[in-house]
Amino acid sequence: MNFHIVTLFPESVRPYLNSSILGRAQEAKKIRVFLYNPYDYADNKWGKVDNRPYGGGPGMVIEALPVLKAVEAAKKKAGKKTKILWFSPGGKQFDNLAAKKFSKIKDLILICGRYEGIDERVRKITKAESISVGPFVLSGGEVPAILVVDAVARHIPGVLGKISSLEESRVASSEVYTRPESFKYKGKKYSVPRVLLSGHHKDIEKWKEPRSGVKRTK
Amino acid sequence: MNFHIVTLFPESVRPYLNSSILGRAQEAKKIRVFLYNPYDYADNKWGKVDNRPYGGGPGMVIEALPVLKAVEAAKKKAGKKTKILWFSPGGKQFDNLAAKKFSKIKDLILICGRYEGIDERVRKITKAESISVGPFVLSGGEVPAILVVDAVARHIPGVLGKISSLEESRVASSEVYTRPESFKYKGKKYSVPRVLLSGHHKDIEKWKEPRSGVKRTK
Repeated sequence: MNFHIVTLFPESVRPYLNSSILGRAQEAKKIRVFLYNPYDYADNKWGKVDNRPYGGGPGMVIEALPVLKAVEAAKKKAGKKTKILWFSPGGKQFDNLAAKKFSKIKDLILICGRYEGIDERVRKITKAESISVGPFVLSGGEVPAILVVDAVARHIPGVLGKISSLEESRVASSEVYTRPESFKYKGKKYSVPRVLLSGHHKDIEKWKEPRSGVKRTK
Repeated sequence: MNFHIVTLFPESVRPYLNSSILGRAQEAKKIRVFLYNPYDYADNKWGKVDNRPYGGGPGMVIEALPVLKAVEAAKKKAGKKTKILWFSPGGKQFDNLAAKKFSKIKDLILICGRYEGIDERVRKITKAESISVGPFVLSGGEVPAILVVDAVARHIPGVLGKISSLEESRVASSEVYTRPESFKYKGKKYSVPRVLLSGHHKDIEKWKEPRSGVKRTK
């Protein structure tokens, strides 16, 4: 699967995309990530891509044409099955189900806004789908973009290896313990819940079930 | 305000924190960001910080002690008014209100999990508050951490400059336009909504209001 990210700040996201699971997924050619900078498509000699908003208001708006040209470059590299996403606080909430759905698409193009946003005509022309990662305001679409790449890539076969389906279950059972079995910290002793050391698989599975108001035995 | 991030992958988040608004906020000393790596606090000669989970299951769990020592280092650098956050899909949803609240705290310590998670005793000992950035599974707490730093920093006076309070309003009015007033794209003409060029402030303000099922005049 290919991720195409249109961003004015490629260097701010590249290291995350190249590290750990996503880095290994790229090396194994399970995913490919391409970055496109609207600055490279500015059509004036100053390389300027933002301008004052029509109708007044604070800040600057990213011009339509440099972004459209960056999207075009992405579409040129992509196959036919493409989806274009655009981040907006008013967009549809991104979730694990969307991540799974997006993982079936060959090429996902992610347009990152900055400043006051991107000229609305880009959304209209590209027919980008507006999505939101949550009820907070961020400085740009870069964090949402790497968040989406991360969440989507995990659904691609081979990215997590064999533990893939099992690992998703950790959403439910979030309490995990490892060695040492017991340690002292500032004079107090902290031990692993006894059930986890019991070897009784049924009891352990029951303990791991999502809590539904039921108090866990420790 | 100081952000202290405990992470096994500091290099994957540093460039984002040092770029654009957050980079300028650090230069202007409005915020400071400190990174702590549990690997630096491993107590074995192999520098290993993860181990198999008790009770079975896939993957590896991050050991408690290297993380506790990293948190201690953060607390040593921090003042008295500290809050410790821990990312968990089952945690309380992070939102703009939480971002504003957190921005009043002098030192915010963010603990990033990886793999199957961090030994639960860390949360117990540090009394970390569990938060979630949304209904999706990610590879670690790094993206949530930079997301929280970004959303919180925007509420700190001086980080956004004078446009601060106004900029928040863009959550409501997400459609923005800038020059050129009109352009042709693949044979079709795309123009800015006329109202934005009218100069009638009342009409413009009304147009910018959040849509409540009301169709905008274009």
